[in-house]
Amino acid sequence: MNENTLSIFALGGINEIGKNMYVVQYGNDIVVIDCGGKFPDESLLGIDLIIPDITYLEENKEKIRGLILTHGHEDHIGGIPYFLKKLNVPIYGTRFTLGLVELKLDEQKLLRDSTLIPIDSESRLEFGQISTSFFRISHSIPDCLGVVFHTPEGNVVHTGDFKFDLTPVNNQYSDIHKMAEIGNQGVLALISESTNAERPGLTPSEMLVGSHIEDAFLKAEQKIIISTFASNINRVQQIVEASIKTNRKLALLGRSMVNVVSVAIERGYIDIPDGMLIEPYQVNELPPEKVVILCTGSQGEPLAALSRLSSGSYRDILILPNDTVILAASPIPGNEKGVSRIVDNLFQLGAKVIYGGSNKTGMHVSGHGYQEDLKLMLTLMKPTYFIPIHGEYRMLHHHQLLAESVGVEKNKTFILNNGDVVDIQHGAARQTRKIPSGDTYVDGWGVGDVGDIILRDRKQLSEDGMIVIVITISKNEGHLIAGPDTISRGFVFIKDSGDLIKEVNQLTKHTIEELQKENRHHQWKVVKQNIKKSVGQYLYAETKRKPMILPIIIEI
Amino acid sequence: MNENTLSIFALGGINEIGKNMYVVQYGNDIVVIDCGGKFPDESLLGIDLIIPDITYLEENKEKIRGLILTHGHEDHIGGIPYFLKKLNVPIYGTRFTLGLVELKLDEQKLLRDSTLIPIDSESRLEFGQISTSFFRISHSIPDCLGVVFHTPEGNVVHTGDFKFDLTPVNNQYSDIHKMAEIGNQGVLALISESTNAERPGLTPSEMLVGSHIEDAFLKAEQKIIISTFASNINRVQQIVEASIKTNRKLALLGRSMVNVVSVAIERGYIDIPDGMLIEPYQVNELPPEKVVILCTGSQGEPLAALSRLSSGSYRDILILPNDTVILAASPIPGNEKGVSRIVDNLFQLGAKVIYGGSNKTGMHVSGHGYQEDLKLMLTLMKPTYFIPIHGEYRMLHHHQLLAESVGVEKNKTFILNNGDVVDIQHGAARQTRKIPSGDTYVDGWGVGDVGDIILRDRKQLSEDGMIVIVITISKNEGHLIAGPDTISRGFVFIKDSGDLIKEVNQLTKHTIEELQKENRHHQWKVVKQNIKKSVGQYLYAETKRKPMILPIIIEI
Repeated sequence: MNENTLSIFALGGINEIGKNMYVVQYGNDIVVIDCGGKFPDESLLGIDLIIPDITYLEENKEKIRGLILTHGHEDHIGGIPYFLKKLNVPIYGTRFTLGLVELKLDEQKLLRDSTLIPIDSESRLEFGQISTSFFRISHSIPDCLGVVFHTPEGNVVHTGDFKFDLTPVNNQYSDIHKMAEIGNQGVLALISESTNAERPGLTPSEMLVGSHIEDAFLKAEQKIIISTFASNINRVQQIVEASIKTNRKLALLGRSMVNVVSVAIERGYIDIPDGMLIEPYQVNELPPEKVVILCTGSQGEPLAALSRLSSGSYRDILILPNDTVILAASPIPGNEKGVSRIVDNLFQLGAKVIYGGSNKTGMHVSGHGYQEDLKLMLTLMKPTYFIPIHGEYRMLHHHQLLAESVGVEKNKTFILNNGDVVDIQHGAARQTRKIPSGDTYVDGWGVGDVGDIILRDRKQLSEDGMIVIVITISKNEGHLIAGPDTISRGFVFIKDSGDLIKEVNQLTKHTIEELQKENRHHQWKVVKQNIKKSVGQYLYAETKRKPMILPIIIEI
Repeated sequence: MNENTLSIFALGGINEIGKNMYVVQYGNDIVVIDCGGKFPDESLLGIDLIIPDITYLEENKEKIRGLILTHGHEDHIGGIPYFLKKLNVPIYGTRFTLGLVELKLDEQKLLRDSTLIPIDSESRLEFGQISTSFFRISHSIPDCLGVVFHTPEGNVVHTGDFKFDLTPVNNQYSDIHKMAEIGNQGVLALISESTNAERPGLTPSEMLVGSHIEDAFLKAEQKIIISTFASNINRVQQIVEASIKTNRKLALLGRSMVNVVSVAIERGYIDIPDGMLIEPYQVNELPPEKVVILCTGSQGEPLAALSRLSSGSYRDILILPNDTVILAASPIPGNEKGVSRIVDNLFQLGAKVIYGGSNKTGMHVSGHGYQEDLKLMLTLMKPTYFIPIHGEYRMLHHHQLLAESVGVEKNKTFILNNGDVVDIQHGAARQTRKIPSGDTYVDGWGVGDVGDIILRDRKQLSEDGMIVIVITISKNEGHLIAGPDTISRGFVFIKDSGDLIKEVNQLTKHTIEELQKENRHHQWKVVKQNIKKSVGQYLYAETKRKPMILPIIIEI
């Protein structure tokens, strides 16, 4: 690329929700925005986490000037430990965001060797020919930033995740005046999130949730158990306030709730009066009408506190008839079943359960702007070029329509894939190049070592199990010395399937004998293939299952 | 049980959505209602279908007088082929329901040996001391029945699946007058479905969907592709009518759509003018504004017609820019991701996509009554005892509250589990007994042969794969003759992990040598256990994965 080219692309976050990572490059200076993880769906058997493929960054290591974090959600910081092991660049984020990053790095013993630099909305950073300034935005976690990249080619704005909340909790205002000024100075390209581009209207204010929580607290007669996202500290603040109003003490349950609230307290992002917090063991020492339990698990996670409470297996805290349980979160698509199971269990314990998310209970609002929020951002920024990010294709598509409706010409919007590069030179943008991008799988300690073949094997093993057939033959004559011995796992019970296995062994013997006649019994590959074929066909005809068949030949 | 006892229980359908099967027994006469299947969730690896455990029925074979079907949905008829192989009893259902059952039995070559007896809402059947009459109800499939069991103890009403649709399509009325009469005659126990007991209000009429379909058809400029449940023949009728109105021909895509519509045509449940239907190959012969394609796949099923159309892989039918695609169905929980993927693909093809289900588009209404429908049924029937069925616990719980609100005393509602029996004698009901019940898994040809151990193995194999370690030792001295030979699948690539495998082989050798010293090397179980332990610990420390470890010892 020419040294005077401004390039913009995503390594993750486009055509997907998760593993956000965006790059702004001018000549030899690269700035990375966010480094997220994504949770695998059930088709990726055994995979723990997906992170962006950073081949391009590794190949351009010496050009990377820093990693800027817009906020502290997992889909924006979850990949950092893996990133740092390969590219130990300075990381910039607000104090709250870095608090969460520190927790994560500390767990993986990476904190000591990393460079974390706190910034705020007034910071100004220089990265070679790129300098950056910031603006405050509202979202469902404290202390979020939008980023302005000042380049010789012009200004590029990255919104981060945002909504416009005019009555936010804890002063988490969007800095609309500053945004208007940025827009007036001229925005060459706007990179804006698209999560709720399908939803009409304006996102409701977080304040609304507070009033519903207060109503529910006022009505509750016994213990209150409330679950929400640990990172939504503003919602936690409102839970604290409803607890004060109803004269209840607050216990925190679940590791991430305790950790995140601790960071918020230490760094001054939440206001909890002294003596308000109690330890879990103290719950049973107080009358039930004096207690609120704030816990993790609002997404139905089977090992989180709410799930364990609902099945009566959380140490000695019991949910009793007429306790009130509030799920102050909407289930994320894919989590409905897990959440429903918990609600069922809670009703069986006799609890009053307030569930069903934003539409039904008002106990949740989204942190992502709806269509009117997105149009307001586009209107404030008045960009020449527009790149919708952070969403699946239909969201990007709708975001393009929104941009068009407020005056961004259709051919100036770039709907990209991860890896597609928008190059801007002399004010003209084009999208012709592609850099390597993709999913890197984390499985246990392994990063990137599990690929399609291993996953295909896991899939076959998961559906129909396997059988191992061991044959021992003599090195010289190729006679069968021992076996066939057959072992099955995940397929059928051998002891219930004696005849089936007998026939498998017969077929195996027969296959070897046939090859001996042709004098091909030393061609192991052929022997194995023929066994797989004959046994596979037989088993499918008998069971309509296709187990993995593993012939093992021992030559002695 | 006493011969003069009326017993009511479920073998499936309570605390779950799916595999509905209910039983009414009086003395020595058993009548079974419905025989459904349920699709497994992703935790049941490789399982194709779940059907009720019918141990109790097998043990009381000689008492079963018949199987009555309320309607033809899979969760009410999907288990029939497996049921018939064990209990070949006469099956009663309306002509449309039996049409769908015939399709199913024909596929499995069971039709010739089965007894299917058509009934209608005027039928009266005698089953020993139980006689039955019926009433028509509205639902999302034609020709549905509610059942009245007349027993010496009193009348029991089973609602089937229902809503009250006062403006139904094709005269699929609920027979409210008859229900009122049944209520007036006295209902000892009402067994009523609970699917939508959490939703306030009255279910909207199917007619509403028709008007939205018509609007969309009038606006469409090119081809129209519309997808809905094949069994919702009344919605198909409305699609036919919108096609007539907009002067378009109709092509049916997808096996179940073709089959079910054929049954409906043959049996007179749908009215399609001559010359209206075209074959798929004719789609390309007509101008796009003259064509409607009605297809399967509204739930995102990857092999169904809509999915294949959306990925450009349905023979020679292409979705082109400005074609209109309508998803006339709400995604069932769990299917959102599959549906979203299709919508994304369709937008990428440039289609106009109408999606998002009932709330967003009006292109779907539920077939299950909301709270006001359920209250109306309870009010019409005025039951002494109430048994909510067909729902997860929270739905049953809400249904009980609804019953209470219209005058059914709380202690006269029985919230059961599958297998819990309500016995009624001399007008008094109690629930003390339990009969065997549970899930029977169908996997390929196998019914009930896959249990917890096989599933546990599949789970382990699916997450971390396996390694097989083969050792050949001499029968007499216990010397290692060959191996260890190690094979891995779904765990790591052997060629990328030479050192790991070398160490596994070393550990295996060492384990055998240690046991030789103790002269325990002939205790195969111990040898295998020790290898599993030492290799397992090593691999977990190195990879943080727990593959299945299968040591195989060959003695020669």
